[in-house]
Amino acid sequence: MIIEKIKESRFTPEVFDIETFGTAFSDHMLLCWYKDGKWGEPIIKPYGKLDFTPAISVGHYGQGIFEGMKAYKGSNGDVYLFRPEKNFERLNKSAVRLDMPEIPEHIFMDGLKALVDLDRQWVPATHGMSLYLRPVMFATEEAITARSSNEYLFAILTAVAPNYYNKPLSVKIADRYSRAANGGVGFAKAAGNYAGSFYPTHLAREEGYDQVVWTDDATHTFIEEAGTMNVMVRIGDKLITAPTSERILDGVTRDSMLQLATKLGIEVEVRKITVQEVYDAHKSGELKEVFGVGTAVVVNNYVAVGYGDERLELPLLSPEESYGQILKKNLVDLQMGVSEDPFGWRVKVEENLVEA
Amino acid sequence: MIIEKIKESRFTPEVFDIETFGTAFSDHMLLCWYKDGKWGEPIIKPYGKLDFTPAISVGHYGQGIFEGMKAYKGSNGDVYLFRPEKNFERLNKSAVRLDMPEIPEHIFMDGLKALVDLDRQWVPATHGMSLYLRPVMFATEEAITARSSNEYLFAILTAVAPNYYNKPLSVKIADRYSRAANGGVGFAKAAGNYAGSFYPTHLAREEGYDQVVWTDDATHTFIEEAGTMNVMVRIGDKLITAPTSERILDGVTRDSMLQLATKLGIEVEVRKITVQEVYDAHKSGELKEVFGVGTAVVVNNYVAVGYGDERLELPLLSPEESYGQILKKNLVDLQMGVSEDPFGWRVKVEENLVEA
Ligand SMILES: Cc1ncc(COP(=O)(O)O)c(C=O)c1O
Ligand SMILES: Cc1ncc(COP(=O)(O)O)c(C=O)c1O
Repeated sequence: MIIEKIKESRFTPEVFDIETFGTAFSDHMLLCWYKDGKWGEPIIKPYGKLDFTPAISVGHYGQGIFEGMKAYKGSNGDVYLFRPEKNFERLNKSAVRLDMPEIPEHIFMDGLKALVDLDRQWVPATHGMSLYLRPVMFATEEAITARSSNEYLFAILTAVAPNYYNKPLSVKIADRYSRAANGGVGFAKAAGNYAGSFYPTHLAREEGYDQVVWTDDATHTFIEEAGTMNVMVRIGDKLITAPTSERILDGVTRDSMLQLATKLGIEVEVRKITVQEVYDAHKSGELKEVFGVGTAVVVNNYVAVGYGDERLELPLLSPEESYGQILKKNLVDLQMGVSEDPFGWRVKVEENLVEA
Repeated sequence: MIIEKIKESRFTPEVFDIETFGTAFSDHMLLCWYKDGKWGEPIIKPYGKLDFTPAISVGHYGQGIFEGMKAYKGSNGDVYLFRPEKNFERLNKSAVRLDMPEIPEHIFMDGLKALVDLDRQWVPATHGMSLYLRPVMFATEEAITARSSNEYLFAILTAVAPNYYNKPLSVKIADRYSRAANGGVGFAKAAGNYAGSFYPTHLAREEGYDQVVWTDDATHTFIEEAGTMNVMVRIGDKLITAPTSERILDGVTRDSMLQLATKLGIEVEVRKITVQEVYDAHKSGELKEVFGVGTAVVVNNYVAVGYGDERLELPLLSPEESYGQILKKNLVDLQMGVSEDPFGWRVKVEENLVEA
């Protein structure tokens, strides 16, 4: 690994006041190029520009995949990652489906840790805050012919992460548009999945909603997931979430929440959820919570769910009553090093990993 | 429009010998940037590098769309475009679905003509050859947050176009993977559609096929389209093709072929085609041809169609017997200015459109 340190850090404590997510980048980035059938040597260098022509393959054919992770700083100053091996594995699952080369574990893991170590002052120490980490891989060959690229860039970027959604969201259940096909790329964290979701989200916004809850494309009968979150539904005192499938992203937060909930004695069901039963549970007063879970948001308790022309308002539970908020507190405490880590999910980033 | 001519042309007659499609670019490119809610002034300048960081939005979220067109040179030296307004309209349909800004007609059309005029020596005069034109638009904002970009680049690139598929292809009918969802982006020329198709194509190749013929994602019962081609099936003396839908690209070649076929007195049916009827027609000997039609290939008569574990070999028709080859000849003659143009499809590129 080549390390090329920034001459003068751009860090100031004011970066933590930035209110937009994912637009303020830390000092360094990791880059690794794939060419002639193999990965080159990774380099950590100051975040900045690269040379690309407008023929860059990803702009035309969309071969791009990414991950979303965070680095947390405990009150003792230690910096942690959270289950990074899950993101590593998922990135490579995405790579296979998009016909892209897999990234070797040492490039991903050692690169990630070295980068976070180098930019550790960018990790905020405030409880609940974090530095967002973005591993990404995309096609860089200068070729406008519809085939897999022969060249790729793997990069890790890090950006200041204020609260992604700083207000509770309302969501519209999809009844016209879809995110994923059977036999498609829905389970992958593929660039094109997001591009395809923006217009339906735009339309939902015009109806007064913030996001779309996707349903199956053939019948719009089953609840699948939201924009960048898996969805959990609480009916009575049961927490229900859809099984992962080839259409749904296998979220790290979802998996962690399921394990945490079970440990906390919350009754959990992983099974298909119909739109109809959510609607019926609302009518009968049994629908207590619907919330999204994902790395960026951790948990967002929805205030309303749109179903056709109806807007189903959800009850306002106190933080002590809400499964979403209870799980969020437990997860964030674990991630920040405040609580014990019975699952072994926390990975400490050692200091001075890199000499430069 | 700003014109910045290349100092010394890179053109040599040898460029026409290049055998790879879409990797040898002509002297100039057109660029136009979208920012602060509006398109800037287009510029034509030497093809080359731009500055992007790895946070370029399209690499993460896949907001990218494109078109594929060609410029043809007649024996009198005139240069023609073919139905460019169709590509202009389709690009903007794609833009809407991908939540991207539409490109104004004058930027697209005037830019395209000026660019082709400037690089007209790159248009080969050989019958059946052409210069490939690639309008493309992608998200360029430096932001890693899952929302529509606020900045875009519209570009037109041109590349030397040898025959895209210089051999007849064999195709595998999709029975596991899919290209498009109901309510998805299949009808758009969206970058992500191609990325999602590479892996299934890769698998088909391992089975001895060149491309995949896509079917509906819910049942794999209906024939939809191929990699970058619409598909036509000839059963007996009837030419059948699927209707366009929200899952299928509305191909300019498909539309032109349907009109040409009707004019030539070929019986045409636009209706859903089941995989089963293609299979049955093969068994009964009535399946005469299956071919793909698209700008890059014009026509490719498939030599075999894979259905499950069976490889259905197709009869070898002479150019005089084959609907595919008859239509191809008629279309190419029209495009190259060899035959009359009763449809008004040819658009001549005037000379010295731009002063520089
Ligand atoms: C489509 C989608 N679903 C769900 C999630 C949640 O996954 P994770 O918990 O791993 O962040 C994400 C990622 O953020 C996502 O993009
Ligand atoms: C998916 C797909 N289908 C069909 C076609 C054929 O369209 P056209 O005839 O406009 O080139 C293309 C484009 O080349 C395509 O990408």
